[in-house]
Amino acid sequence: MTPSVSLPNLTQYEHLGIECEFNLADGHAHQFQDPAQQLIVRQLSSVFAESERRPLRDLEKEFQSCFYGLAGQSAAAGRRRTLLCQSASQSIDLVAAFLGARGKEVGLLRPCFDNLPGILRRRGALLRPVAESDLTGPGPERLLGEGGPGALFLTLPNNPTGFMPTEPEFARLVQRCAMTGTLLVIDWTFRFHAACERWDQYEVLDNSGVSYLCVEDTGKTWPTLDMKCSILATSEDLFDPLYELHNDLLLNISPFVLLLITRYLEDSAERGLEATVRRPVRENRAALRHALQGTVLEPVEPNATISVEWVRISSPALSALDVVGLLADAGVGILPGDHFHWDDTATGSRYVRFALARDPALFAAACARAGAALVAASSPRREGAA
Amino acid sequence: MTPSVSLPNLTQYEHLGIECEFNLADGHAHQFQDPAQQLIVRQLSSVFAESERRPLRDLEKEFQSCFYGLAGQSAAAGRRRTLLCQSASQSIDLVAAFLGARGKEVGLLRPCFDNLPGILRRRGALLRPVAESDLTGPGPERLLGEGGPGALFLTLPNNPTGFMPTEPEFARLVQRCAMTGTLLVIDWTFRFHAACERWDQYEVLDNSGVSYLCVEDTGKTWPTLDMKCSILATSEDLFDPLYELHNDLLLNISPFVLLLITRYLEDSAERGLEATVRRPVRENRAALRHALQGTVLEPVEPNATISVEWVRISSPALSALDVVGLLADAGVGILPGDHFHWDDTATGSRYVRFALARDPALFAAACARAGAALVAASSPRREGAA
Repeated sequence: MTPSVSLPNLTQYEHLGIECEFNLADGHAHQFQDPAQQLIVRQLSSVFAESERRPLRDLEKEFQSCFYGLAGQSAAAGRRRTLLCQSASQSIDLVAAFLGARGKEVGLLRPCFDNLPGILRRRGALLRPVAESDLTGPGPERLLGEGGPGALFLTLPNNPTGFMPTEPEFARLVQRCAMTGTLLVIDWTFRFHAACERWDQYEVLDNSGVSYLCVEDTGKTWPTLDMKCSILATSEDLFDPLYELHNDLLLNISPFVLLLITRYLEDSAERGLEATVRRPVRENRAALRHALQGTVLEPVEPNATISVEWVRISSPALSALDVVGLLADAGVGILPGDHFHWDDTATGSRYVRFALARDPALFAAACARAGAALVAASSPRREGAA
Repeated sequence: MTPSVSLPNLTQYEHLGIECEFNLADGHAHQFQDPAQQLIVRQLSSVFAESERRPLRDLEKEFQSCFYGLAGQSAAAGRRRTLLCQSASQSIDLVAAFLGARGKEVGLLRPCFDNLPGILRRRGALLRPVAESDLTGPGPERLLGEGGPGALFLTLPNNPTGFMPTEPEFARLVQRCAMTGTLLVIDWTFRFHAACERWDQYEVLDNSGVSYLCVEDTGKTWPTLDMKCSILATSEDLFDPLYELHNDLLLNISPFVLLLITRYLEDSAERGLEATVRRPVRENRAALRHALQGTVLEPVEPNATISVEWVRISSPALSALDVVGLLADAGVGILPGDHFHWDDTATGSRYVRFALARDPALFAAACARAGAALVAASSPRREGAA
């Protein structure tokens, strides 16, 4: 077995994953095009010509309206003042620049992807970890208010766990933020993998009077080869300062990328999120769970829906880095849990994460490879077999 | 005439320019596709399929090799450790994060596009203005060393002036930076519009032992609808810290975008930079100069080659904002010079900037419109004509 490599952040493990025969490391949407999406790809030349000809503002509006329509967020579909960014990370960096300059402590959900604490800290934000359990029941009352953080930064549904509050839980949390003057930041990147379209989160936010920043993205959902668009949506009071930060970094998203993504969104609206987004992920999750049966890896959340699987290591003899090394030797790249628990990597080292947004045939082959490697590793005859 | 609007930064003027009938504001490459480029566009579906299939590392290497080959920078074409970014602004922001954390004063060329001081300051960098004349003759000896800035940030060829040192001037400047331990940052975004391919800037940099960061970009050169790729190239000693900053913000550039741009680069390599990049800009410049003859606007640099025209206002009665307002009324969006002189907007207010990378037919119509408006404004009978 390759000795465990300890790297400074998850992105570097993702780079290793890209080099593996099977990359189940990064959470980008890498499934191949289904037949209807292949039709879109066949028309790329006319998408290019159309995007070259049409006014940019029309393409931006159409994208936003399609995006929020599909997301079931009618309160946001027609709003005039939003900011488009090249990626969720870029939106998050603008949020971080704003929070860093404000100087108040930021409560950051843990676990979360480690570029969040990375970006926030580089912009000078002071962080305090917040548990998922702090967001429900009596949690918000205890967390927010006297002595609480000035801002709360959440990923919902959470990556890697899939945690998502119910509508009443969300409403209570938002109310508490509004009442205590806590700025609420939510990264909704994985929204299309959960049933978030059933109720309008923006309506709850707008009605509460809370100051908020929402990050939206298409890159974890549609297999557009990392061409993506992120929306940074703000409460009215926060638009102007964020717009000025945005001015430094970009003028506009590529009109071609906007129109291409709009085509994918329209297709998902027509055929449904179930057929175009959720079923492929569910089937890959079932294949992975089947392959992991009887091994030391146990899915944490039975009802998970988002496009990554968060898995606990049941054997104390193996760390996350051991499992990552073992699977890398078998040609399968995954992420160790360590850095997701950004203030407590020991807790994180009991978990690993598998990405699910992959082509089913490739994914099945990766599962077979991973399952065999895990069985061989736990077999008592392994040493003698060499 | 519309009253002059004073906006906080150039990007906001560019947003106004996008709304004009003729947008000569932003410096992005907005010319239409020539016939050979139209052929590339017609094959976009196969570009997509190929980029989906091929290993990302191959696409990255091929892009870098094509880019530096066309740029005549053979010392850089094969280097292993470079960072790819989504835009020059993103590369610059990583540079700024590094410089800001280092805490030393940064000498920044003036004039320059105002997102440079914007980005640098938000990352905590302290700025000192540097004139173009400080970079040649006895300038570097005076500027750098005891009491000089710890880093020097230049755009070469400079935007908006087109200023570019000769090879011996550049070598002397680099030597002085190396000798005094001054970190040298160069944004080469407009390199393909000047004859920079005639000598190897990276060879000069590498041979000198200077610590350097170079920003490259394709977005000001090829009309790929704002799909672009920026290279952040570092001297060996600076790679690791920049890599870690890069990890926070992105995993990879879209493979589709990489391959698409590579096709445009290959086409320019085949047909030459003269035919594919420089002639259209030169012809638009000639058309603009013809239209401005006899008006209050006078080109600053007779031998300018880059894709923007920097123009002085000869009448003291008109400020840059007046001229921008006057042309906006005639449907033509341009940029005022104010913010280019980021520490001295009064000096900048004597200039305006026209973008030249536009479709020739549209550009000719814009010139006619601008010329007529300027003539009408300076005519003594203008008041009575209303």
